[in-house]
Amino acid sequence: MKVHRVKDLLVEDLLLQEIYVKGWVRTFRSNRFIALNDGSTIHNIQCVVDFENTPEDTLKRITTGAAIQIKGTLVESSGKGQKVEIQVNQLDILGDSHPDEYPIQPKKHSLEFLREKAHLRTRTSTFSAVMRVRSALSFAVHQYFQRNGFNYVNTPVITGSDAEGAGEMFRVTTLDAKKPPLLENGEVDYKEDFFGKETNLTVSGQLEAEAYAMSLGKVYTFGPTFRAENSNTSRHLAEFWMIEPEVAFMDLDGNMDLAEDFIKYVVRYALDNCQDDLDFLEKRLIDEEKTKPQSERSEMTLTEKLHFVLDNNFKRVSYTEAIDILKNSKPNKKKKFQYPIDAWGADLQSEHERFLVEKHFKCPVILFDYPAKIKAFYMRLNDDGKTVRAMDILFPGIGEIVGGSQREERYDVLLEKVKAMGIDEKELWWYLDLRKYGTAVHSGFGLGFERLVLFTTGMTNIRDVIPFPRTPQNAEF
Amino acid sequence: MKVHRVKDLLVEDLLLQEIYVKGWVRTFRSNRFIALNDGSTIHNIQCVVDFENTPEDTLKRITTGAAIQIKGTLVESSGKGQKVEIQVNQLDILGDSHPDEYPIQPKKHSLEFLREKAHLRTRTSTFSAVMRVRSALSFAVHQYFQRNGFNYVNTPVITGSDAEGAGEMFRVTTLDAKKPPLLENGEVDYKEDFFGKETNLTVSGQLEAEAYAMSLGKVYTFGPTFRAENSNTSRHLAEFWMIEPEVAFMDLDGNMDLAEDFIKYVVRYALDNCQDDLDFLEKRLIDEEKTKPQSERSEMTLTEKLHFVLDNNFKRVSYTEAIDILKNSKPNKKKKFQYPIDAWGADLQSEHERFLVEKHFKCPVILFDYPAKIKAFYMRLNDDGKTVRAMDILFPGIGEIVGGSQREERYDVLLEKVKAMGIDEKELWWYLDLRKYGTAVHSGFGLGFERLVLFTTGMTNIRDVIPFPRTPQNAEF
Repeated sequence: MKVHRVKDLLVEDLLLQEIYVKGWVRTFRSNRFIALNDGSTIHNIQCVVDFENTPEDTLKRITTGAAIQIKGTLVESSGKGQKVEIQVNQLDILGDSHPDEYPIQPKKHSLEFLREKAHLRTRTSTFSAVMRVRSALSFAVHQYFQRNGFNYVNTPVITGSDAEGAGEMFRVTTLDAKKPPLLENGEVDYKEDFFGKETNLTVSGQLEAEAYAMSLGKVYTFGPTFRAENSNTSRHLAEFWMIEPEVAFMDLDGNMDLAEDFIKYVVRYALDNCQDDLDFLEKRLIDEEKTKPQSERSEMTLTEKLHFVLDNNFKRVSYTEAIDILKNSKPNKKKKFQYPIDAWGADLQSEHERFLVEKHFKCPVILFDYPAKIKAFYMRLNDDGKTVRAMDILFPGIGEIVGGSQREERYDVLLEKVKAMGIDEKELWWYLDLRKYGTAVHSGFGLGFERLVLFTTGMTNIRDVIPFPRTPQNAEF
Repeated sequence: MKVHRVKDLLVEDLLLQEIYVKGWVRTFRSNRFIALNDGSTIHNIQCVVDFENTPEDTLKRITTGAAIQIKGTLVESSGKGQKVEIQVNQLDILGDSHPDEYPIQPKKHSLEFLREKAHLRTRTSTFSAVMRVRSALSFAVHQYFQRNGFNYVNTPVITGSDAEGAGEMFRVTTLDAKKPPLLENGEVDYKEDFFGKETNLTVSGQLEAEAYAMSLGKVYTFGPTFRAENSNTSRHLAEFWMIEPEVAFMDLDGNMDLAEDFIKYVVRYALDNCQDDLDFLEKRLIDEEKTKPQSERSEMTLTEKLHFVLDNNFKRVSYTEAIDILKNSKPNKKKKFQYPIDAWGADLQSEHERFLVEKHFKCPVILFDYPAKIKAFYMRLNDDGKTVRAMDILFPGIGEIVGGSQREERYDVLLEKVKAMGIDEKELWWYLDLRKYGTAVHSGFGLGFERLVLFTTGMTNIRDVIPFPRTPQNAEF
């Protein structure tokens, strides 16, 4: 007999039909009403037990968290909150859940508490909603790129290069942990390691993606990347998923067009496909914000924030213009910024990015043409000799969500930059090759997927939008 | 002005229109005919240069590998091999490619040679075709699961558990490589490591996926996994991508149905969406096989192999039946198997798997109910007490392509297995929790994505179906 999904029962016309459903008990009240969930939707289905004809022993085992199967009839519900319910004809307990031991009680748990129970937390409405939205967003990413002629490239996670320069790296090794083999000069003998050289976990697939763009034309990566930085913040993870498109023959303007179009597509996809989950998350956010002082509350609801992105053109502003605006801004003059802006060349902080988006322009902002000194070696130098063709996209609430650039396509200029930054050019022989053989203008960007999920779900801690977060001192599960 | 993709020029009706195209020169002959490719398709477009009105210097720079842009008119071609061509009005060199230095010459290179040039090898027809098919298969994987109500789960790459038991692992660390901190007893003090404990690269996301299946119902992973095994074969990588669906309330029969339906969907997707690339790869395989002795040639062409999977029901055979068949088979009696089959309990080798598929049943085969002793601790024990609800799917040419099982859902039985196998149960506290709170029948499988790409493209070395392969002594690029 076919097992029905709760999601289908709630929307399909199955009234008076025989129903077979399996799931987990969320609540059981009055010895009669089971709220059953099977993970297919944020909503539970109400199952009404004929308690007079159900053995006492079975009734006792209908506890929060228990797995059960039910055969019954779908009928109109006279109760509040649901149109239909199941009149239970047969109920079997598949797996018990001891009510005194089960950690996920039918009450409000703090997000911190649930983080310690990451293997069970998707049994709550909040985390099941977040993870369904995350899954939908992932698919939207693939669908967008595939529909637009991009090829998915799985760039390597283990890298022999430390030239990516985006941050501290994790070493990957099979050498003896206690007594690594040493050379005569006291250095580690990496020739004896698995790959015959020192290897690390990648911080970005960009350089390899560039190689593929320079042959397949349009490519994207979507995979895990790593930072061994001791940042215990609500915005940083040691392991996170990154999306990195890379396109041959595309300049920075094209890059901005692509990024804006892409983000709007995936946010629109979530709105179109996750309405129930987003409605729930919107209410959750409103409740959460009530506990905060007025000044810290968001001016927009979740839906308003999503439409803020969809309905506005992203304002394109050069770094130089932005510095002018910030320098002359009220908070700067009144010394309200933690990092005052006094001169061109300053690196922008989250407070500045949010000021530009939320107060000044009141729309998503793309900053471009940054000072070369604060950006990576591979970004294309402008003719002014001091700025590079970089862009960052700034969003309300979270600040930078995308970082990208047109890449330096000129062999000589790139080589000079590599040397000036003290990078071993021998390590980048293959990257330099791309400029030696059929080089061309090309561009791309990186988007930290968890930042996108954070933005779309209205969650505030990045640990709550990835299944099993990896942070300093924490690799549980 | 809009840049046209070569792929579109070849199929859309753009005759006599003005064309703007950018790409790389594959060949240039008779000072006149450029074969141009932009990565969008296996096919080149012929661009006809008016050499009398083109500067000598420009003509010289039209070399294999050079990036160029062309404006011209799309006209019917009178030449062989193409319907349309571009009459060049304007040609600009974007990036030169020195003909004496460029490694990818317009001739046949060995796959081994191209492996050393992994950053350039997708500039060949073979590798661009393989990687486009790989990308399409990836998307088919996501599309299949999303359409069928599965949620994508990103299980962690860095794991604090070594209980997965699927093979040797890579250590992930930020400890001093030369002088790791030691405890008084001489052991490494992992409390000082980044995560405060010893961590490794995951060999499988299954255990974490199970946690998600037991709340979201139907989930799948698709991410990188790792084996630190010193296997230098054409079938093994140290880093590869794995697909692992996991479904609550599904038994082994449902698992077999799912795997068969899934594989057929993705293979069908490739046939429907990558016809040109597969046609090329089929011809390539035929050419390659001509260089082999008759006995080693495949009996099927690539298309025939793909249809062998699509058009046959996968034959379901118990391990016990399979052993009987193998024991009484001609090659076993004539001692042609390298590993003779003499008794129940033997682990099957590739030669046995291929015999069953290619000679005996002549269709894909699903073996199930394996001896518990040769399978993992988490597989569900049958009532006979000696077999487990495991299944392997066997394909022609490559042998095992899927391994899966119904999982042991009974707390006591699982705990006993964990102990018997000497696994620290404290490490698996959360995995055991899943059996303590609302346990239920559930199942899943793992499919090594590169094996699927190998099968679908007809390539024979797994290093040739992943962009930048990681193998012992090799982590270049």
